[in-house]
Amino acid sequence: MAKRSSKATRPAQKPRASAAAGDDITITALNLPPAPLSPDMAAYFAKCEEKLGFVPNVLEAYAFDGAKLSAFVAMYNDLMLAPSGLSKLEREMIAVAVSAQNRCYYCLVAHGAAVRQLSGDPPLGELMAMNYRAARLSRRERAMLDFAVKLTAEPWLVEEPDREGLRRAGFSDRDIWDIATVAGFFNMSNRVASATDMRPNSVYHRQGR
Amino acid sequence: MAKRSSKATRPAQKPRASAAAGDDITITALNLPPAPLSPDMAAYFAKCEEKLGFVPNVLEAYAFDGAKLSAFVAMYNDLMLAPSGLSKLEREMIAVAVSAQNRCYYCLVAHGAAVRQLSGDPPLGELMAMNYRAARLSRRERAMLDFAVKLTAEPWLVEEPDREGLRRAGFSDRDIWDIATVAGFFNMSNRVASATDMRPNSVYHRQGR
Amino acid sequence: MAKRSSKATRPAQKPRASAAAGDDITITALNLPPAPLSPDMAAYFAKCEEKLGFVPNVLEAYAFDGAKLSAFVAMYNDLMLAPSGLSKLEREMIAVAVSAQNRCYYCLVAHGAAVRQLSGDPPLGELMAMNYRAARLSRRERAMLDFAVKLTAEPWLVEEPDREGLRRAGFSDRDIWDIATVAGFFNMSNRVASATDMRPNSVYHRQGR
Amino acid sequence: MAKRSSKATRPAQKPRASAAAGDDITITALNLPPAPLSPDMAAYFAKCEEKLGFVPNVLEAYAFDGAKLSAFVAMYNDLMLAPSGLSKLEREMIAVAVSAQNRCYYCLVAHGAAVRQLSGDPPLGELMAMNYRAARLSRRERAMLDFAVKLTAEPWLVEEPDREGLRRAGFSDRDIWDIATVAGFFNMSNRVASATDMRPNSVYHRQGR
Amino acid sequence: MAKRSSKATRPAQKPRASAAAGDDITITALNLPPAPLSPDMAAYFAKCEEKLGFVPNVLEAYAFDGAKLSAFVAMYNDLMLAPSGLSKLEREMIAVAVSAQNRCYYCLVAHGAAVRQLSGDPPLGELMAMNYRAARLSRRERAMLDFAVKLTAEPWLVEEPDREGLRRAGFSDRDIWDIATVAGFFNMSNRVASATDMRPNSVYHRQGR
Amino acid sequence: MAKRSSKATRPAQKPRASAAAGDDITITALNLPPAPLSPDMAAYFAKCEEKLGFVPNVLEAYAFDGAKLSAFVAMYNDLMLAPSGLSKLEREMIAVAVSAQNRCYYCLVAHGAAVRQLSGDPPLGELMAMNYRAARLSRRERAMLDFAVKLTAEPWLVEEPDREGLRRAGFSDRDIWDIATVAGFFNMSNRVASATDMRPNSVYHRQGR
Repeated sequence: MAKRSSKATRPAQKPRASAAAGDDITITALNLPPAPLSPDMAAYFAKCEEKLGFVPNVLEAYAFDGAKLSAFVAMYNDLMLAPSGLSKLEREMIAVAVSAQNRCYYCLVAHGAAVRQLSGDPPLGELMAMNYRAARLSRRERAMLDFAVKLTAEPWLVEEPDREGLRRAGFSDRDIWDIATVAGFFNMSNRVASATDMRPNSVYHRQGR
Repeated sequence: MAKRSSKATRPAQKPRASAAAGDDITITALNLPPAPLSPDMAAYFAKCEEKLGFVPNVLEAYAFDGAKLSAFVAMYNDLMLAPSGLSKLEREMIAVAVSAQNRCYYCLVAHGAAVRQLSGDPPLGELMAMNYRAARLSRRERAMLDFAVKLTAEPWLVEEPDREGLRRAGFSDRDIWDIATVAGFFNMSNRVASATDMRPNSVYHRQGR
Repeated sequence: MAKRSSKATRPAQKPRASAAAGDDITITALNLPPAPLSPDMAAYFAKCEEKLGFVPNVLEAYAFDGAKLSAFVAMYNDLMLAPSGLSKLEREMIAVAVSAQNRCYYCLVAHGAAVRQLSGDPPLGELMAMNYRAARLSRRERAMLDFAVKLTAEPWLVEEPDREGLRRAGFSDRDIWDIATVAGFFNMSNRVASATDMRPNSVYHRQGR
Repeated sequence: MAKRSSKATRPAQKPRASAAAGDDITITALNLPPAPLSPDMAAYFAKCEEKLGFVPNVLEAYAFDGAKLSAFVAMYNDLMLAPSGLSKLEREMIAVAVSAQNRCYYCLVAHGAAVRQLSGDPPLGELMAMNYRAARLSRRERAMLDFAVKLTAEPWLVEEPDREGLRRAGFSDRDIWDIATVAGFFNMSNRVASATDMRPNSVYHRQGR
Repeated sequence: MAKRSSKATRPAQKPRASAAAGDDITITALNLPPAPLSPDMAAYFAKCEEKLGFVPNVLEAYAFDGAKLSAFVAMYNDLMLAPSGLSKLEREMIAVAVSAQNRCYYCLVAHGAAVRQLSGDPPLGELMAMNYRAARLSRRERAMLDFAVKLTAEPWLVEEPDREGLRRAGFSDRDIWDIATVAGFFNMSNRVASATDMRPNSVYHRQGR
Repeated sequence: MAKRSSKATRPAQKPRASAAAGDDITITALNLPPAPLSPDMAAYFAKCEEKLGFVPNVLEAYAFDGAKLSAFVAMYNDLMLAPSGLSKLEREMIAVAVSAQNRCYYCLVAHGAAVRQLSGDPPLGELMAMNYRAARLSRRERAMLDFAVKLTAEPWLVEEPDREGLRRAGFSDRDIWDIATVAGFFNMSNRVASATDMRPNSVYHRQGR
């Protein structure tokens, strides 16, 4: 068998500190040199290092431009971490099921790890990434993911009966907004990651196994 | 022929002031009462009224929650209005071609109007909404839209040759980022609009004809 | 932004009189010189000029061959104008919803204008062209368009329950024939237009706004 | 195995004379009583009986309305029988390859028989109905069918390079028109047949074997 | 029309005895010389000659390797001929409906002949190959084919309600296994045939007409 | 969040010894009691226990019928373990890439583990399961997987140029046969697993991380 090489042949985005031993140091296929971080963003990156042990590569990718980085962080944190009728695990399950529909390597690796960690159920992370329909889900979870994946695959077919299905499964109109915007956000991120060949931090592979 | 009715039968989002005569006053199918605007956002809405003559319904839809509204506005304005190697018209052309792939009524109406106005070429707005391949485009425009629409329809197939195609058409790596993020953003917005049955301000229909 | 040009570079079909100021004078990408019109067809073209103010480009495209032109006109007029249980507006709504599925620029422009004019409801024309599911339709209209669009996208899946759905919505068997043949006709015309790069008369863009 | 029944349970179109022994006497699922034939059409039906030994069911299906029958016959005969740069066999090959894409039982049976008879090559009829790509075709035939099938499956993707491919394979612009209109016509007929559950005359099954 | 040639231009699999007059002697596009048959397989080939009058080309194709040939024959004979709650005709109907979804020329010809012969109903073979939904089927047959074709086209969507549908139509869990494995087997064989351009024995075309 | 339950509510296939602590003891959704193993198969199961530490659930699933089990084992072992121009890792890479296209949970888990173990490269297993196009592959590997996945998704489009592509990447005709049959085999197994809701042994999740 011929040799596989993880070396990209052209200049490309790299993390500002290539510290993580054994990590693939290419972040995206685009040559976008990092800009100095604003104090806010420097503090945020430091907090990531402290809490996660690393800065997620998607942040390094956006770090070539302060305004774009700030806007991305603000929207991400509001959607995934702010109070919501959806638990953090539920939001991560949506992230992975949507990313599976779009076959996005970066998001499946990063958010698959989150599902494994938040649920304490490693196979659940695999199920979300492989085929959420094969998982043993509550009616609420299934309705939520069916909506998110239909919205991903065929958004033009989503209509009032789909919203009614969510309401019957116990979701409020505010919850429906949150399902829609989390699913929408990963439809954006999946495409940014695929368009730029974004590579996940290798540490994700070992998390929550 | 039976009668069509624009009246929705359940409580739903409405603009804070239903001023625009003749306008359909439902904004989305979700019942999310508007929250008081922050001073920043109140100033931004006032600026919309002054410059456009109205507040786009997407902003009214997000206005039930200040943090979500701010994050959306920050990202939108950075992507569509900040300096970029892409002209504003080019960014709007991406918006419409992506929205056509996703058959999103709200975004096709709102951004189709923008293409007509920015280009001074009304049929160009129709072409973006109907089939961009039928338009007489420059090589640069065609490469840009082919990339954005492939990224929309089959993001998992986007690879280095697609990026090379953009570089050969004259785009820098920074431009490629902008094409990817604008296309990504409308993949998000199309889904939020479809999930909530968002309705465009009726004034768009008459703009730039 | 590079310059767009509406000039085609090879000989192509042009109208016999390039009268309409500002109009793109290319009709199709094929080089098929117009034949002399038969007295019947000459009278029909004159009637178009008188009633519409122009000859639709699809007729100019067929005019290279008298027998083909006559056969097309006879079938078109029977389907779209002869007495039927379907109103003329309903038939035009089918035309546009089918053409949207097939993303046919010519037919969306020409028949979108007809929907706007016959309904007096400009947004209805946009809705048919963008996503008919987002329109506020009567049950009858929705059943009719669901049938026509399914027949367009996946004709092999149409079965007795689909016909029963039309009957329950109040359509007779004769009406079902008319829905099927109007939908069928635009599946033909969409393909002739796409295969030949047929361009609509520019006057359509301004009609019924 | 449970019993299959060829008896439809509701009134449906039947031929005016149910003469052909052993034939399924239902023509379509619609209840549309035949109208008296005009002298022209009566002569045409008589000619069918004389030359083919039967009246094709599609004609019986249209015979509930004289104007529709005449328009269909005029267009069909011009496309399939009038002088053209395409041989009659080539036009029938297009008919079958298009009908295979649309999985139309009526047209596959009726025109598959025509390919077998005109070519004297029974497997060729099967190949057109099953997968034309598996047939040993001339470059000309392959280009013609690739164009017709792309136009059937994804008409919005047909562009100048597709037409250029036909020209390189030796087709004139007039030939391109004929390929497009024959393919378009069967996209219409396939849908009328599927919408109405049209059944082919059983005699076709034995022809040209 | 240019000439079609059935002559392949490169070395390819041929039957060990090119006896059948008029037959296309190429079996696949791969150059895999036949190996000597084991006594078991020699006896099996002799039995085919005796009972069918020929050795099916799929067996000749596998005959370059004794272990592969034996494994294929063992699985095929168990699935298609061993005792089962499914009749042999039902198993052949699944074979053809699956092969139609995959547009596999080899399997449609070989197993279409089997359906015609086992049912004594030639049009039934055509219906399975063209569009099984157009056939007049028992509820049991329809449920069986709907399951097999969904499993073929979108296996990831098959879930408990699909199995329940089979049970309601009278199938046991053992029958469900048999439907699944017959459908699965032809999903394998269709791909081996398409990957290698396998050609059916010409005698199939005339069987059961 | 509502509670997920791994308990199936109806009788279903279970392993003959539910020894593995913490394992989900349901194997498929079908109620097919295990049959006594033949001496050969009993020895094979013992060898699995000895070498792998467990009997793969797919074998338990087939164990209700001795002939079916033997045929499956013979074909599987020939394809995946017998001498071939393809390495065992290459065959497992095909297994996973095909199973990803079909979104088969059982095969992705079981064969993803094999890719991780045989390659010593855990992310490679994830890449095969998520999007093989994102992996850094040799030209040979990429050609092999492109062929296998095209053959899976659209087998009717595979033609001589696809085989030529494999030959140019260094594969012999015998190798092409092996690629085709391994890809074909997993198209079968994926469907049997999906049709029966087959569940992988939980031990796979931890292998090769």
